[in-house]
Amino acid sequence: MREVQLQILYAEDKMTQSMTDSWQITVSKKRKQVLNNIPTEWILDSKTIARLKSDKTGLSHNIDQLCSLKENAITHSTLLELQEGIRNNSLSCFEVTSAFCHRAALIHQVVNCLSEIMFTEALEHSKILDQNKYEYSTLPPLYGIPISLKDQCNVEGVDTTLGYLSRAFKPKKKEDESLIVSFLRDLGAIIYVKTTVPPSMMATETTSNTFGYTYNSFNQHFSAGGSSGGEGSLIGCYGSVLGLGTDIGGSIRIPASYHGIFGFKPSTGKVPYLKVDNSWEGREIITSVIGPLARNIDDLRYFMSLIVNNCKPWIHDVKCMPYQFSSFEDSKLPDGLKVGIWYGDGVVNLPSGDMRALSKCKEIIQNNQKFNASIVRWEPPTDLCEEIFNLAMEADLADGGTEINNEFKMTGEPLLDILRPVVPNDSPKPYTVNEWWNLCKRVSDAKQKFRDFHNNLPVEVRPDVVICPSTLMPYRPGDMLETTLRYILFANLLNLPSLSFPADAMIVDDNHSMPDIINGPEDAMVQKMWNDLVLSGDIEGFPSGLQIISPLSDNDDLVLRFGSWLTKLLQES
Amino acid sequence: MREVQLQILYAEDKMTQSMTDSWQITVSKKRKQVLNNIPTEWILDSKTIARLKSDKTGLSHNIDQLCSLKENAITHSTLLELQEGIRNNSLSCFEVTSAFCHRAALIHQVVNCLSEIMFTEALEHSKILDQNKYEYSTLPPLYGIPISLKDQCNVEGVDTTLGYLSRAFKPKKKEDESLIVSFLRDLGAIIYVKTTVPPSMMATETTSNTFGYTYNSFNQHFSAGGSSGGEGSLIGCYGSVLGLGTDIGGSIRIPASYHGIFGFKPSTGKVPYLKVDNSWEGREIITSVIGPLARNIDDLRYFMSLIVNNCKPWIHDVKCMPYQFSSFEDSKLPDGLKVGIWYGDGVVNLPSGDMRALSKCKEIIQNNQKFNASIVRWEPPTDLCEEIFNLAMEADLADGGTEINNEFKMTGEPLLDILRPVVPNDSPKPYTVNEWWNLCKRVSDAKQKFRDFHNNLPVEVRPDVVICPSTLMPYRPGDMLETTLRYILFANLLNLPSLSFPADAMIVDDNHSMPDIINGPEDAMVQKMWNDLVLSGDIEGFPSGLQIISPLSDNDDLVLRFGSWLTKLLQES
Repeated sequence: MREVQLQILYAEDKMTQSMTDSWQITVSKKRKQVLNNIPTEWILDSKTIARLKSDKTGLSHNIDQLCSLKENAITHSTLLELQEGIRNNSLSCFEVTSAFCHRAALIHQVVNCLSEIMFTEALEHSKILDQNKYEYSTLPPLYGIPISLKDQCNVEGVDTTLGYLSRAFKPKKKEDESLIVSFLRDLGAIIYVKTTVPPSMMATETTSNTFGYTYNSFNQHFSAGGSSGGEGSLIGCYGSVLGLGTDIGGSIRIPASYHGIFGFKPSTGKVPYLKVDNSWEGREIITSVIGPLARNIDDLRYFMSLIVNNCKPWIHDVKCMPYQFSSFEDSKLPDGLKVGIWYGDGVVNLPSGDMRALSKCKEIIQNNQKFNASIVRWEPPTDLCEEIFNLAMEADLADGGTEINNEFKMTGEPLLDILRPVVPNDSPKPYTVNEWWNLCKRVSDAKQKFRDFHNNLPVEVRPDVVICPSTLMPYRPGDMLETTLRYILFANLLNLPSLSFPADAMIVDDNHSMPDIINGPEDAMVQKMWNDLVLSGDIEGFPSGLQIISPLSDNDDLVLRFGSWLTKLLQES
Repeated sequence: MREVQLQILYAEDKMTQSMTDSWQITVSKKRKQVLNNIPTEWILDSKTIARLKSDKTGLSHNIDQLCSLKENAITHSTLLELQEGIRNNSLSCFEVTSAFCHRAALIHQVVNCLSEIMFTEALEHSKILDQNKYEYSTLPPLYGIPISLKDQCNVEGVDTTLGYLSRAFKPKKKEDESLIVSFLRDLGAIIYVKTTVPPSMMATETTSNTFGYTYNSFNQHFSAGGSSGGEGSLIGCYGSVLGLGTDIGGSIRIPASYHGIFGFKPSTGKVPYLKVDNSWEGREIITSVIGPLARNIDDLRYFMSLIVNNCKPWIHDVKCMPYQFSSFEDSKLPDGLKVGIWYGDGVVNLPSGDMRALSKCKEIIQNNQKFNASIVRWEPPTDLCEEIFNLAMEADLADGGTEINNEFKMTGEPLLDILRPVVPNDSPKPYTVNEWWNLCKRVSDAKQKFRDFHNNLPVEVRPDVVICPSTLMPYRPGDMLETTLRYILFANLLNLPSLSFPADAMIVDDNHSMPDIINGPEDAMVQKMWNDLVLSGDIEGFPSGLQIISPLSDNDDLVLRFGSWLTKLLQES
């Protein structure tokens, strides 16, 4: 049964056809290890899997049919509702945990989003929490709430692979546990799954030799995005109420955008990265940050306030700084907020989906005068946008693929095409330290130029927050190299807080059209892909994700407060 | 006359004997350019110079005799007294500026501490300020106060050499001016001199082919220290009331320590470094910071509050962060402050001078119970201290001397021995970017270990501030390589705020002796030098400088408040 199921799950993955090399044997073992942690009663038969895979846009609804009413009530709740349910004893921790484990198991069998399954430990933990519940006068804030983790967070007893086969079967010890995982445990959360990533996380499509391909659970025609693709797919289908991703080049925001959920990339030093495994450790020029993905904006804000205000990471993690988030219940905005709208950088024009979504946001804000928010057009200079993008790309190529190549060589697993942008075929020589310092200097200079641009704007058109493009459109499995990260890397290189949020749903018969002018090959590529997608009809109803950024770092709280306010307006509209 | 003076000034500098090579001709031109900016009436005759040079410990007193009573009253005032005098019209800006220009010119002719002289511009500026004075309801805080600048700050119309001949005769433009220089101008300050540094600033002895050797103005037997050696020597002899230095490995604290003055190395992001020229730009692993040297702790605190609270550098400089200093008038301390005393790292033992100074501080604190401060013994683990020191040394060697070598090659000026620690003879290959990232990772890990050490201390012995060794002892010209930076680099690598302060005066017949045990070659070297100095008698009365650090970054204000309190107790004792 399990063998059959394994073959079904990975059927589209050609490597499983003849797993005879030593690395393939390890892959096979690892995949079995994952599946063996699913209880037999939750294993789907091949017919059901085939049916769920073929109904590309109906997965969540189809999985609802396989779960009990109570399970669906739980998994469709917000974190804050679950907390309330556990506190008022209408829900047990075990019921909550079991519902999410069950649903995660089902989702995984269709879209392949889990890299570690810890159901046994999680259910055991939930029982203990139920037993101990009456010892508390106030329950810890995440008491009995299951939280999912990207496969970078270290958890005792399981691997952290980063998508590399070389790191499989090296379970972490207690002392390796990530600080954020300790925080989650202290807050009462239950750890039940880790989710898939591409090797090194330096790709925005989630696939690996070790775990295979992760599909988009909202619409299986498309990629889940990445690198926190497993998280996006799991949360997008109600298999987790909130999970942790990381973002060095869109890895939180892209999967969030592609699943119609919220993803927050904080600025550096807010959420502790201590003992979270990573690629390119010590490369501080563009810093990977850890942040939440969630279906609900209040959940996300509540989680940020817990991790930052309650846990005070700056005491423990030398890279964190004191910060304070406002309460999720505080939906007030500063009076007279100026909201920038970014209609494109002059290099890659926006598809009609984005133009439509931006217009919608603009209208809604203009029609709501509660806080006297005003709209301004925001246009950072094209040459500066180009410089920022080029510097980010140069930084990603600085070691000529050395580190990633070395990890692949350890086991002999073949390099994946999605990594070609950071591991080029011609393997350029790694930068010398002097070349690297020069690049770091140019990055600092670009950040300063951006600050100067901001400061030099007349105060009446200098925005506090900016609504801007994000992923532009979904892409089909294998098409990652046809996408642009232009509007994504911008916030990484400049270390700007960014909330990825669902602004609209795409429609095929869109009246808005792409501009006539094609700026260059990248613009042409994007326009072609958009036109093909519209033609296919597959994007109908797909979420139009945008970002809210602040032009100043450390305005994380403002970005979330504005995001919360705008989301409520969008939901009411 | 000027030719004679030039020869006298640089007599001890062998290179001036036969300046025939092309680089030597440039040196000669640059030196003439500096001296030509001294008015003829302030030029000393050769006999006077010889007399002032031979009275090793009497320079300040001897220069008093060459200046008017009013000039001496001005130059011996504090910045706050000068401000008051200018505000109440008992002093004109011109008088103040002229007094400092005159004195700086005289000091320079003995100890050779200036790299740029801008007397004409300064005096002109002071006249304009006097004329405009009555247009203000309140004068800007530094109105008419001359401030000296290390030769890293960019000022319109003059060079920033960093001690390199290659950068001579490349005067900076208006748009190149350092942000901090713009701030000083906005605050009403007068720019009148720039001060000498060793080439690259990566040495703690101030000498260069371009400008020659800078002597210690407190005691000409000894080096001025470095790399802000010109500042130390100028301020130590009342030629400036306050000046700006930079510190990446003690460059503010060492010259301050060697002149019995205060030097503050802030943690990163407090004082703006924007458009301040530097070596190894983009090498962010250990960050150079800019900070004040001053004779008076209140002046220093006042200056920090002006630059940070008033100028709000974080708005303009993308590398700065919001911060707030308390007023210099606020000398209250948090109740129950725990003051650590660090008696050595277990590698290099402290000379008796330091042991005596530490004991003095300890007793004074214990005898003053106003804020219930208590003393705790602070002992970071020896292996961690070793690791921190070794990482800092490794970081300094990472490019194998490439950048510095390239600068020297541009003109053919010969490399100096003081740079051998960062430009080794055998020229190792520069690190690859992967080796560099690995080093950065190890530095982060060491910072985290230090934080863990701090957090794991029982709260009753976990210090808020620590009084610790600094330079240990002075050294004679040419002996830089016999000194240790162990207690200095500690605060740089860990990014801890540190105040260098004069704690005591050394005495030859010191009862305290070095420990019997010699820990290793570095310890033996330090002990030998100390014993030789005691034997020579030359250290009698030399300042015993210590540091006040905080084990947590961003406690800059607490370090200054504590330093201010302790200084007042020391002065009363």
